[in-house]
Amino acid sequence: MPASYAYLGPEGTFTEVALRTLPEAATRELKPYVSVQSALDAVRVGEAEAAFVPIENSVEGGITTTLDELVAGAPLMIYREVLLSITFALLVRPGTKLSDVKTVTAHPAAQPQVRNWLKTHLPDAVWESAASNADGARLVQEGRYDAAFAGEFAAARYGLETLEREIHDAENAQTRFVLVGRPARPAAPTGADKTSIVLWQRDDHPGGLRDLLGEFATRGINLMLLQSRPTGAGIGNYCFCIDAEGHISDRRMAEALTGLKRICLQVRYLGSYPRADVRPGEVRPPFPGTSDEEFVGAADWVVRCQDGRF
Amino acid sequence: MPASYAYLGPEGTFTEVALRTLPEAATRELKPYVSVQSALDAVRVGEAEAAFVPIENSVEGGITTTLDELVAGAPLMIYREVLLSITFALLVRPGTKLSDVKTVTAHPAAQPQVRNWLKTHLPDAVWESAASNADGARLVQEGRYDAAFAGEFAAARYGLETLEREIHDAENAQTRFVLVGRPARPAAPTGADKTSIVLWQRDDHPGGLRDLLGEFATRGINLMLLQSRPTGAGIGNYCFCIDAEGHISDRRMAEALTGLKRICLQVRYLGSYPRADVRPGEVRPPFPGTSDEEFVGAADWVVRCQDGRF
Amino acid sequence: MPASYAYLGPEGTFTEVALRTLPEAATRELKPYVSVQSALDAVRVGEAEAAFVPIENSVEGGITTTLDELVAGAPLMIYREVLLSITFALLVRPGTKLSDVKTVTAHPAAQPQVRNWLKTHLPDAVWESAASNADGARLVQEGRYDAAFAGEFAAARYGLETLEREIHDAENAQTRFVLVGRPARPAAPTGADKTSIVLWQRDDHPGGLRDLLGEFATRGINLMLLQSRPTGAGIGNYCFCIDAEGHISDRRMAEALTGLKRICLQVRYLGSYPRADVRPGEVRPPFPGTSDEEFVGAADWVVRCQDGRF
Amino acid sequence: MPASYAYLGPEGTFTEVALRTLPEAATRELKPYVSVQSALDAVRVGEAEAAFVPIENSVEGGITTTLDELVAGAPLMIYREVLLSITFALLVRPGTKLSDVKTVTAHPAAQPQVRNWLKTHLPDAVWESAASNADGARLVQEGRYDAAFAGEFAAARYGLETLEREIHDAENAQTRFVLVGRPARPAAPTGADKTSIVLWQRDDHPGGLRDLLGEFATRGINLMLLQSRPTGAGIGNYCFCIDAEGHISDRRMAEALTGLKRICLQVRYLGSYPRADVRPGEVRPPFPGTSDEEFVGAADWVVRCQDGRF
Repeated sequence: MPASYAYLGPEGTFTEVALRTLPEAATRELKPYVSVQSALDAVRVGEAEAAFVPIENSVEGGITTTLDELVAGAPLMIYREVLLSITFALLVRPGTKLSDVKTVTAHPAAQPQVRNWLKTHLPDAVWESAASNADGARLVQEGRYDAAFAGEFAAARYGLETLEREIHDAENAQTRFVLVGRPARPAAPTGADKTSIVLWQRDDHPGGLRDLLGEFATRGINLMLLQSRPTGAGIGNYCFCIDAEGHISDRRMAEALTGLKRICLQVRYLGSYPRADVRPGEVRPPFPGTSDEEFVGAADWVVRCQDGRF
Repeated sequence: MPASYAYLGPEGTFTEVALRTLPEAATRELKPYVSVQSALDAVRVGEAEAAFVPIENSVEGGITTTLDELVAGAPLMIYREVLLSITFALLVRPGTKLSDVKTVTAHPAAQPQVRNWLKTHLPDAVWESAASNADGARLVQEGRYDAAFAGEFAAARYGLETLEREIHDAENAQTRFVLVGRPARPAAPTGADKTSIVLWQRDDHPGGLRDLLGEFATRGINLMLLQSRPTGAGIGNYCFCIDAEGHISDRRMAEALTGLKRICLQVRYLGSYPRADVRPGEVRPPFPGTSDEEFVGAADWVVRCQDGRF
Repeated sequence: MPASYAYLGPEGTFTEVALRTLPEAATRELKPYVSVQSALDAVRVGEAEAAFVPIENSVEGGITTTLDELVAGAPLMIYREVLLSITFALLVRPGTKLSDVKTVTAHPAAQPQVRNWLKTHLPDAVWESAASNADGARLVQEGRYDAAFAGEFAAARYGLETLEREIHDAENAQTRFVLVGRPARPAAPTGADKTSIVLWQRDDHPGGLRDLLGEFATRGINLMLLQSRPTGAGIGNYCFCIDAEGHISDRRMAEALTGLKRICLQVRYLGSYPRADVRPGEVRPPFPGTSDEEFVGAADWVVRCQDGRF
Repeated sequence: MPASYAYLGPEGTFTEVALRTLPEAATRELKPYVSVQSALDAVRVGEAEAAFVPIENSVEGGITTTLDELVAGAPLMIYREVLLSITFALLVRPGTKLSDVKTVTAHPAAQPQVRNWLKTHLPDAVWESAASNADGARLVQEGRYDAAFAGEFAAARYGLETLEREIHDAENAQTRFVLVGRPARPAAPTGADKTSIVLWQRDDHPGGLRDLLGEFATRGINLMLLQSRPTGAGIGNYCFCIDAEGHISDRRMAEALTGLKRICLQVRYLGSYPRADVRPGEVRPPFPGTSDEEFVGAADWVVRCQDGRF
């Protein structure tokens, strides 16, 4: 296995910054790729040990490109997640003034995060989408656009100046990134873990989705993300990407997944990994009746009943 | 273990008739007891291998005396069930005419089954309860009452005549009897089995009972009996005696029982045994997602995910 | 309408004592009847304005005779309930000593409440059932049995002595009585009310009963009694007598009943009446989202949406 | 009110083609806007009577830009929906051959629909995003890119040639458009209607979303879309855009909305309108217990009970 991580490039994006917060990144070669798809393909074909890509942000919700790649094709698995607070800087060529800015660019995902700022400060500026925020900075450097929204760290790399910083329509804007690899034994549970899966309903009927969610609810498992994605079978046909609190080695999660596997048309397991938003000590204890001890005790009791020892 | 069965006596009751339909009864000594309690105590103290008692009938519902004995005290277990169609005969001393009958007797459980007949044919007769239908017949023999409702088979034993036969207010009147022993490995599943349990709720809140029943419902398990019984903790405090379709060795039943054990204050297992109402070939197949194969397949899949082999 | 109340007699039973706790009883003629059935029939045929009968006790649970009368026949309605603490006295002819007691009697419903006392203090005494506890006292007076379990208040009436008082196997033994009349506008809500209904399932399938209970659960309504009763259609066919917290004029209760009416084969309304166990100030407030204000506000909102005013 | 419809421009996009399928479009001035936001703002400020924008497609799922505009700001309402099958043509300047194509452009939403075709036929072509498919065609006309994916109808307008037609990665690719206006009385029910709402959970706990969906499920209402959208309160905080079968004037839908209004933090009604995917005669009849007649009958019964007429 090559000791390299693919990531959504180019260099100088939030993705790279987030990736470098992972201790293991220090010992790998970090290779930028032009798209989420190509980064994940690098993993699938064995060019990279893992790929680091954005999967959710507080403004756009689930990153559909990433989710769609995880939903289809050869199975992949989430190893780790990273949360990064996102604020934008407006980068310009040295000497440009705000009043000079007629065209702005950035990755489309940046747009909702800067929309209000733009409406207020540059109501007449024309927006053009860039392949990435860093690429937008590069295009400004090349003179194609007047200004780019990007992480402030990109200014130096592209010889630009920061005209405005800390631009973010929403407070607490964060992006969640995941390190994705090929199927492997999940990381050991830490006590503050998350499990990601994709569900396809067996058939569509009133209560179908409610019953799927019931497999989590009746075992006291909280959901952190529910993102519908088209199955490709035509409009109105969706599968569901779900992040749920807990680890597949928790008894309640294992049983919930067993239940889903039985009643769904298909379930794709996307991994169990430490949560980046809380530390183990901060996690709410299991609801009454859902701890591992209670599951084990109850299963033992059933076995004793089956054996006539009760 | 003594090769004897206790049963709710005296001789000559429906209970004895039902007991004799069990092949194994032919090889045991059958000992009548004066009450359900004493018959079950005979099992508890080791005087009898098992006890045969009524547990449910189509007019009265669950026989509370029997249920209360199973709910409390040293654990017992249902080994077998028998269904017997119940119709009464009106037994009198030879020569008695219907117009002579001023007093009638029978076990109180008989009353609802003959109430309408009595109102129509003997509206002025005074009812007195007897300890059993056979005992009622004996009291008629002794001259204490004019007539007894009992199984026609009791006439000969007590030297009585049948004045009327096939008395039954409800069509399809049946009584269900159970053979009860000490905890043992349940009988092997036949494909048409029933599991009996008692549930005590952990706390009483809106939806509490609904959630308990949900453990069966979400696994496609049908209920055949739900009988509340007071817990003894004051009015409004109930436990629930439940008969559910299936055997504890069925995966769906085992998981439902595990779930109940986790979320209930207490669960008492009362056994899994062949159903007397249908034969294996007549049982509805499991609902989609609830067959043993699907449970096993789903559990295997979770293990593969836990191992990184997916 | 005759100004009389029928009650389960004879005089001198717990029923009469409970009835006399009702203020309105002081202004009615109180007429004892020999059975629950005859007391309720007196109401149905217009002989009595209402009938007062036991419906539940803390040892036996629902009184099936009463429930079965309410479930079938011309509709009746519960107007009021009374709770009475039940302890028994052992009544004997003057001069009888405990060691002289060879036979004891009482109504069968008393048996579970005195069973343990009997086993300890009179293990060899023979039990014979009486038509009522008062009737048992009368039979002792007549010399037919040696002792009767009855309310201590019955001693004077039948010239008996109290050999032992405060006999009760279970602490907090209570019986709940109801005043039953013909259908009428329910009593105004007091803030601590109860609603009684009977449900028949439309068809029997896994989850059927769970879904019925869900109509209460999803609206935050707690259940106080769930008693299955045979429908008469053969063993395993049950309807459900339910007592639920709240009044039919509460919006959450009205909507729950509407839901049940839609999805059940049949619903019989048995009335809404003040709870005897708590006073209005002691009742838990409605769960979030289930108060009358929230129901009214939400319904108004839907109307505004339907009218385009949102 | 101005007799004009705003739509997501420029002219010559699928949106315009879809809009022109609406009979009422023939009598309005159709004004293109540069973004969904600006088209909807035109409605909000009264510049346009309604706006026509894409809301869902079979490849991308919910169009988040549109959903986010409907979720926030002054209330808007969906009046109508249109379904349009989407296939792309590859448009080039006259004389360009496939082997000449080094750069391609289109709206980002087109990318997933042409991704596979591109990988197969133009693996080395560089993709640049355009503001719209029509704008991509214009940029090709101007010589900025070599080819554009767009509706074939755009070729004539921009003086381009069709190099390839019927390009679509997914069979049955469709886009759903909606005509959005200010709050008004919803269109009369047709028997094949859809209701759109947005839900915000009151608090986040296991089973929270399951219970919300239960308000639909227990009334037999099928869901057609469930799209989570960030609330702006930070990562992991979502509201849910839901399309459900039925009209707000259907009793089951009205009661479901009432229930949601009670238990949600907030509910935004987005309208009830005729379904474009089926005609009235093709709609499944209501589930047992959920027809208008059954709702009305049950409500009448409750009123009769409240009045004592049962």
